[in-house]
Amino acid sequence: MAESTLDKVINLAKRRGFVYQAGEIYGGSRSAWDYGPLGTELKENIKAEWWQTFVRGRGDMVGLDSSIILPSAVWQASGHLETFTDPLVECLQCHKRHREDHLIEAFEDKKGRAPADGLSEVACPDCGTKGKFTEPRAFSGLVKSYLGPVDDETGLHYLRPETAQGIFVNFSNVVTSARRKPPFGIGQIGKAFRNEITPGNFIFRTREFEQMEIEFFVPPAEADAWYQRWVEDSERWFTDLGLNPEHLRRFDVPDEERAHYSAATIDLEYRFNFPGSEWGELMGIANRTDYDLGTHIKHSGKELSYFDQATGERYVPFVIEPSFGLTRAMMAFLVDSYAEDEAPNTKGGVDTRTVLKLHPKLAPVKAAVLPLSKKAELAEPSQKLAATLRKHWNVDYDDAGAIGRRYRRQDEIGTPFCITVDFDTLEDNAATVRDRDQMNQERVPLEAIESYLFDRLR
Amino acid sequence: MAESTLDKVINLAKRRGFVYQAGEIYGGSRSAWDYGPLGTELKENIKAEWWQTFVRGRGDMVGLDSSIILPSAVWQASGHLETFTDPLVECLQCHKRHREDHLIEAFEDKKGRAPADGLSEVACPDCGTKGKFTEPRAFSGLVKSYLGPVDDETGLHYLRPETAQGIFVNFSNVVTSARRKPPFGIGQIGKAFRNEITPGNFIFRTREFEQMEIEFFVPPAEADAWYQRWVEDSERWFTDLGLNPEHLRRFDVPDEERAHYSAATIDLEYRFNFPGSEWGELMGIANRTDYDLGTHIKHSGKELSYFDQATGERYVPFVIEPSFGLTRAMMAFLVDSYAEDEAPNTKGGVDTRTVLKLHPKLAPVKAAVLPLSKKAELAEPSQKLAATLRKHWNVDYDDAGAIGRRYRRQDEIGTPFCITVDFDTLEDNAATVRDRDQMNQERVPLEAIESYLFDRLR
Repeated sequence: MAESTLDKVINLAKRRGFVYQAGEIYGGSRSAWDYGPLGTELKENIKAEWWQTFVRGRGDMVGLDSSIILPSAVWQASGHLETFTDPLVECLQCHKRHREDHLIEAFEDKKGRAPADGLSEVACPDCGTKGKFTEPRAFSGLVKSYLGPVDDETGLHYLRPETAQGIFVNFSNVVTSARRKPPFGIGQIGKAFRNEITPGNFIFRTREFEQMEIEFFVPPAEADAWYQRWVEDSERWFTDLGLNPEHLRRFDVPDEERAHYSAATIDLEYRFNFPGSEWGELMGIANRTDYDLGTHIKHSGKELSYFDQATGERYVPFVIEPSFGLTRAMMAFLVDSYAEDEAPNTKGGVDTRTVLKLHPKLAPVKAAVLPLSKKAELAEPSQKLAATLRKHWNVDYDDAGAIGRRYRRQDEIGTPFCITVDFDTLEDNAATVRDRDQMNQERVPLEAIESYLFDRLR
Repeated sequence: MAESTLDKVINLAKRRGFVYQAGEIYGGSRSAWDYGPLGTELKENIKAEWWQTFVRGRGDMVGLDSSIILPSAVWQASGHLETFTDPLVECLQCHKRHREDHLIEAFEDKKGRAPADGLSEVACPDCGTKGKFTEPRAFSGLVKSYLGPVDDETGLHYLRPETAQGIFVNFSNVVTSARRKPPFGIGQIGKAFRNEITPGNFIFRTREFEQMEIEFFVPPAEADAWYQRWVEDSERWFTDLGLNPEHLRRFDVPDEERAHYSAATIDLEYRFNFPGSEWGELMGIANRTDYDLGTHIKHSGKELSYFDQATGERYVPFVIEPSFGLTRAMMAFLVDSYAEDEAPNTKGGVDTRTVLKLHPKLAPVKAAVLPLSKKAELAEPSQKLAATLRKHWNVDYDDAGAIGRRYRRQDEIGTPFCITVDFDTLEDNAATVRDRDQMNQERVPLEAIESYLFDRLR
């Protein structure tokens, strides 16, 4: 069977150091992934673009960075302690636990029909025993941790399953200290943790992950209009950064599938082409109504409503929440930018090349300096050029192997510009700049390369 | 007693939204703090400067972002499970636990002498009972968490107490995928967790905190020279960003106080003037020798040595570790930039003003646009100017209150430039730009303000 594009991207990501398996030398962890030099830069670039577009770049937004560990009272109030659970069944033979709905889905995928008579036809994925399961029991998706000198229930804390609650509990702090009034929003980027039973699909579903969340507080009458607007703005962010609109779709989540706090949710899905499922959730935009502020008012006894001096009215703002998965966004940008096309080789023919056509703003390496030889006379101006460019960008330096191979290495990681320093450089003080996508080459004076790149990377 | 500078800074930080107490509406947590709009921007600016100086800006460094939750085997190998412990005593009356050394220090601070006869003179800080403690027992500083569907010891994981181990276990991955050879380093910014018994001193000692760490891998013979160099480079980073060198000192950590992995450690200390202790650790530079890679070779059975093709030698690199506390750096920059001086008021006299003389690169707000009146004719060009500047920077917009008061509000948060749009603007298409430190005012054409700020903020 031919390797799928998804598999090719995953292999490239592992081989070139975008993503490593966490704790690999100790057998690895299914819970999380580590981001290597290129993955870290790509992820940082996605975060920077998001922050600029949605927080710094807007007059109606501010940022926040709240803690991962919050008092249990927050999760009691938010409803997570009660409702953030999955039904699990336990195999009576090997005592491993599984999500009942996942067992049924797997059966359906394999047999093309639903299992008859509950789980009686279904085999345990671990030991193979058929139809011997307990009744489903609730299992919390919250990750427990213990803090403080006494290792008992008084030290029990939960790692946040979403960054959102850190925003809600600080609503009044922000209104007061940053002098804000609705409509306005608070953005936050950070880690969250969910005790997923079946992590999988590479960096798509992990127990440790990163979110980019906005809670946008509005007068209740404006909620629907802002909801629509945030759906548009969120989708446009992806397509402005190069994601093919044909690989995106909106899924209007029906009543029975929505989270307990939501009056309306649209999931933005990307066509990942996972085995057994074409589309995967990239982000969701929800109308959380006044559920969150309301429940925190009830549980904390604090006044989290807003008093509008202009109208003399006091109200609990509605919340529109665009919630982005950072690592999912990264995976979508990688898959979407992957291409194999033809590039001229040095022998006058063409080679097939692998290229990540990442938006230049996202590319982990903006330019590579490639001296044609390792000789000192070329190394000296090349190093000097690289040092100049590093004042602004992440820049590679590669002097090993044939120049065609070095181009291929940079294409494969999406570097927009390759700069070749050759022996003519010693005469004309210029270098050849090659564009990743057009593959045309331009001779540019060394001292003009900085501004040449500035013009093209902005 | 007069309020200390430290107290003034802490009050300012809370009042203006740099830092909030985590989970405040539920009584708060001692474990962590939340960063408000200004604190988040300041922290992001510190991270960006660090990343640019030490990772992107250098040809011999790459970045990494490893997971917070790592398999227990990592902490077994690193020695943290065994040695990352504090001796705790338990009060026989109230059963609260305390660090024995902290009890003794507190007694000494109060009485000016060491307690006689162990803890027999020392009272429990919780219930006041004197001299009734258990023998000291080891208490792990690691924070436990439970992952996976089974809530028992098989799901036990630890939250990382330092980002460093995520770097060590990925050493070979980086060498191979990023084609690196010593001397080279890996930098990482991220959260870490320690089960501190006595969190305190505001954001200085918390259970959840952020680090900026470098593990720099070198041939063993070069370790001493690189160690010295990293001490210099680290200190220069703080002073280049405006920290007063007189408020910094190096503490050469003696043998008996060093961590188990270190052959030499210099702590860089800042004069925080905490109650009872003038200096506090800002960061440490350690020569970790081949301890970490060596112990991971032993425990994982993997080959983490480096084969030098030029000399034909295989060796285990030594590691020089500059480990920065991000939130401690933020606190030092806040304390160091705090000043009270005199500013001219609108009546021709002088007022005392509070000002944060933050380096412009660190200032959370780079410029504030201040229309002299709320009238539409001034709001329109002011909003337009603010939107233009927001393409590059975090920009405030404030049209409330007297202009002098608005200057004071911006001074207090360290905004380098205030731009006043007045009725003359409608004639000359220019605005008045006021410099935070010089307090001089310059008339600049509206269309030139963007480049005016570019020149001054670079």
